[in-house]
Amino acid sequence: MSIGMTLHPRYAYDDAEVSAEIALGSLTVTAGDIVAFAREFDPQPFHLDEDAGRASLLGGLAASGWHVTSLFMRLYCDGLLLQSTAQGAAGVDFVKWRRPVHAGDTLTGTSTFADKRLSKSRPGLGLVSVHSRLVNQRGELVCEFRNTGMMLTRAAWDAVHAGVRP
Amino acid sequence: MSIGMTLHPRYAYDDAEVSAEIALGSLTVTAGDIVAFAREFDPQPFHLDEDAGRASLLGGLAASGWHVTSLFMRLYCDGLLLQSTAQGAAGVDFVKWRRPVHAGDTLTGTSTFADKRLSKSRPGLGLVSVHSRLVNQRGELVCEFRNTGMMLTRAAWDAVHAGVRP
Repeated sequence: MSIGMTLHPRYAYDDAEVSAEIALGSLTVTAGDIVAFAREFDPQPFHLDEDAGRASLLGGLAASGWHVTSLFMRLYCDGLLLQSTAQGAAGVDFVKWRRPVHAGDTLTGTSTFADKRLSKSRPGLGLVSVHSRLVNQRGELVCEFRNTGMMLTRAAWDAVHAGVRP
Repeated sequence: MSIGMTLHPRYAYDDAEVSAEIALGSLTVTAGDIVAFAREFDPQPFHLDEDAGRASLLGGLAASGWHVTSLFMRLYCDGLLLQSTAQGAAGVDFVKWRRPVHAGDTLTGTSTFADKRLSKSRPGLGLVSVHSRLVNQRGELVCEFRNTGMMLTRAAWDAVHAGVRP
């Protein structure tokens, strides 16, 4: 398949309902996950060591902010993106890390389509503004961000797939 | 050490010179790195497979955008953060992924202090707005973002460390 992940995506641009919240599922982050990510990408002491975390503002071993956004991305892929006509995104409007993510925390993701419009220059391409949130097992918001993604209409998707399967 | 990573940081708030560009060093990303990150966090086909990448807008196996920001973070830690009085950041103002990052690309990071001011509510704490960029081996901008970080003054840092080492 040349574009996208499934021949019959559940979510096309047409299906993106403004203000509706989409549940993306949950995952639990372990101390091993936190330390492995930090060793590779963000070796600050409070991401590597429980004692250093406790002595810091984060109050314990805490995940790198980039680990948190990457964990969200996994939920987003599994819960929406891989079943959609999404064509990627060129950036993120903002990221806010609201609370630390500690070892053992269970994170649950949601996304809301805040806005949508069709591209004027590319027929069949839609632009969707998505506001996403991660909460922990106590329902506390730990991270939120907004981005604008590209998403094909169902007709454009079908045309592309008709093209690649003559 | 309770706060920070070194007793004699090279960069304190006092040293943050507005508009000066700080070189953060370089790293090369391999196909194995790209696929390993994608399997864990962003399993879209163009991040997992060369053929799928070539057939996509990305033109080849390409790193997840969250992998790119995480690679930047590594350069930022090694080149500045771990030798500074930085106290973390609560978010990112924006991220723009300008061009794909392909296997074998060498990325070089720079950061510029765009603005700085002392906190009115917390003496000894500074707020620095940092604009960061990653370019590839052809000098093309692949990613840029801006964030506002917290950074202690040298006097505040020394006071904290005097406190923890009575």
